[in-house]
Amino acid sequence: MNGAAHIDPIAAVVLHLAIVLVAAKLGGELAVRLRQPAVLGELSAGVVMGNIVWFDPVAADPAVDLLARLGVLILLFEVGLESTVKQMLQVGLAALLVAVTGVVVPFALGWGIGALLVPELGPYVHAFLGATLCATSVGITARVLKDLGASQRDEARIILGAAVIDDVLGLVVLAVVSGAIVAADQGSSLSVGEIGLILGKAAGFLVGALALGVVLAPRLFRLASRLRARGVLLAVGVAICFLFSWLSSAIGLAAIVGAFAAGLILEDVHYRDFVDRGEHGLEDLLEPISSLLVPFFFVLMGMRTDLRAFADPEVLVLAGALTVVAIAGKQACSLAVWRRPIDRLSIGIGMIPRGEVGLIFASIGATLTLGGRPIISPALYSAVVVMVIVTTLVTPPALTWSLARSSRPAAQSSQGPSQ
Amino acid sequence: MNGAAHIDPIAAVVLHLAIVLVAAKLGGELAVRLRQPAVLGELSAGVVMGNIVWFDPVAADPAVDLLARLGVLILLFEVGLESTVKQMLQVGLAALLVAVTGVVVPFALGWGIGALLVPELGPYVHAFLGATLCATSVGITARVLKDLGASQRDEARIILGAAVIDDVLGLVVLAVVSGAIVAADQGSSLSVGEIGLILGKAAGFLVGALALGVVLAPRLFRLASRLRARGVLLAVGVAICFLFSWLSSAIGLAAIVGAFAAGLILEDVHYRDFVDRGEHGLEDLLEPISSLLVPFFFVLMGMRTDLRAFADPEVLVLAGALTVVAIAGKQACSLAVWRRPIDRLSIGIGMIPRGEVGLIFASIGATLTLGGRPIISPALYSAVVVMVIVTTLVTPPALTWSLARSSRPAAQSSQGPSQ
Repeated sequence: MNGAAHIDPIAAVVLHLAIVLVAAKLGGELAVRLRQPAVLGELSAGVVMGNIVWFDPVAADPAVDLLARLGVLILLFEVGLESTVKQMLQVGLAALLVAVTGVVVPFALGWGIGALLVPELGPYVHAFLGATLCATSVGITARVLKDLGASQRDEARIILGAAVIDDVLGLVVLAVVSGAIVAADQGSSLSVGEIGLILGKAAGFLVGALALGVVLAPRLFRLASRLRARGVLLAVGVAICFLFSWLSSAIGLAAIVGAFAAGLILEDVHYRDFVDRGEHGLEDLLEPISSLLVPFFFVLMGMRTDLRAFADPEVLVLAGALTVVAIAGKQACSLAVWRRPIDRLSIGIGMIPRGEVGLIFASIGATLTLGGRPIISPALYSAVVVMVIVTTLVTPPALTWSLARSSRPAAQSSQGPSQ
Repeated sequence: MNGAAHIDPIAAVVLHLAIVLVAAKLGGELAVRLRQPAVLGELSAGVVMGNIVWFDPVAADPAVDLLARLGVLILLFEVGLESTVKQMLQVGLAALLVAVTGVVVPFALGWGIGALLVPELGPYVHAFLGATLCATSVGITARVLKDLGASQRDEARIILGAAVIDDVLGLVVLAVVSGAIVAADQGSSLSVGEIGLILGKAAGFLVGALALGVVLAPRLFRLASRLRARGVLLAVGVAICFLFSWLSSAIGLAAIVGAFAAGLILEDVHYRDFVDRGEHGLEDLLEPISSLLVPFFFVLMGMRTDLRAFADPEVLVLAGALTVVAIAGKQACSLAVWRRPIDRLSIGIGMIPRGEVGLIFASIGATLTLGGRPIISPALYSAVVVMVIVTTLVTPPALTWSLARSSRPAAQSSQGPSQ
């Protein structure tokens, strides 16, 4: 009969969501038992599932993708909440130097590897390969630091600050390189004015958003604290996170930059009115939401890995070379830290993962054409994916080891309950 | 330039989500100030937004739809968690009688109204109109009861138990009626065996799921409590909710039936191991998630209302008649309650809203054809929608008034922290 007509369209979706949740927790459990951060287990669970045909509908489900994207925003928002603008400014110069070094050196090395191994593809492709190496994936490092309870350490602030800045710088490099490619494809070249516009937007957003937030956030929460409906604090907080994500996206930056900025400007003095009347703080309220949503991002990133790419020797050589310069390039960051009590090695390691941003760059490269051929061919794409996977997989254990080695006690901040 | 290429696809989505969140809380606030449950304000905010063209992309966003569908599952799961199988069985017979009365009477009245006002459309259409009147929307009533802190009262258990049962009965009626229509459209008729199969599946699911859950849930949680990864309790709980939703959908019942059943079988003795080691209980962990997700359902239901349908007098007459019998028909439920200390009027009122199930029925009717014409024409659809809206809007204030009038203290259960 037409029983099928009654099957709610949500049915397949919730099955997929349940599968991802269970896989994430089983993978996370395995990692925790092996004394690794749970995030590595979630990624690995995703890699295993991604290479079993049976799970293909899960990986292709737009609902899983949506929750993963929301999850990474919530994660960056949470990480931002753990820091304040004041604390970021204290590490600001260090973070800026680390970020600039961590963009310039890998970009140059990536370009060089391209020129060395695939000279026939020309400078635009080489520049694009360099661009994919620029941006650190804040998501992975933030999660590892959170799993280790190290988010409040100075190293963590420098890494996260630098990662956010090099995200912006990476996006600027990408925008400039792709702009040049589009112009070259049309037989012209990129104007200085256009480069200036891209640069101006990025700087304007961060400074503007932070300044606006610092002025507006306290007023907004004072207003919101007068509302009597249930769940106002959480809804307002999440809405601000989403609005900032949209704003940063709308001006051409990554949405995660906005989510992090939103977290940065919200401090718990702003919503003390809520806590005073017995409600939970924003961090407490976000905790269950992030523990449910964030694993979707890491499992999905794992699922998108095609292990068959490892079978092609040429891809393997290029992937290996890219991975080596990706890791080595970010170690240059540690040279940019001049303050002594800071653990330089942890900073270099913390900057390694390329994660989601590298994948986004590679997928943009696959859609750009020059003379009718895509800038990033399937083979190059596989090489970039391998680089992203290895840098991502290598960071959690390395950072765990490195932070444990530098046995300084975690610096306590004045910023309310730590998790 | 190609700045557009960098706009994260999540950007538009998060803007829409932020808009819904803000609208929900503003609407909820207005309702609370008018001493109404917040849900009425969320619905009204949706109705207002749904009739402003500017918000059309929000209403059409599949992400909003997804979160709304997940929200109603989480809501029913939460409501189920507040009751135990034992408590449900105590009100079981009363709930069954209420449910059967609340399906038979509105079905007959709906059929009669169809035969009276639109006799030319034939008995299949009349039967279908009757079917749309069968199922109470547990979502609305559950939320009102929750907002009023009355979920633990005997009336609440009877209403929710009956609503779940009449959801099943309504789906059975719908399956039988649509089966008959499909058969008639093909020139044959529905066999007794097919009707038996539909009935058997429904009974089998509820009894089977409950029995299985009662046996398996404690073992599953004892196993899960040995895991050390973060957020295991919440992930396992939500995964069970999703799996039951999928299961009930897979056998042709509404997904919400499974979500409610999942909540019913999970009792806090099952996860005492988690709470003993200092974690929050499942209800506490779900609270922020539901306060964020559930408003999406109510705002979206409001947004799907087209106020222009009210402009056609013929639609208005049919809508008015359907609404009257929808409300009057469920008052017959109170006659099925023979125990005296129970507030009968509240039960009759609590069964009124048709909400999501009525809308789902109407949309299925719009896709069924008989002799080349849809069973539910656009005009009939509008009439059903108006009935759904009015029954939905009328219930919160009526139930608030009715429960306040019967001033019996809320029965305290032994079931842990109430909200």
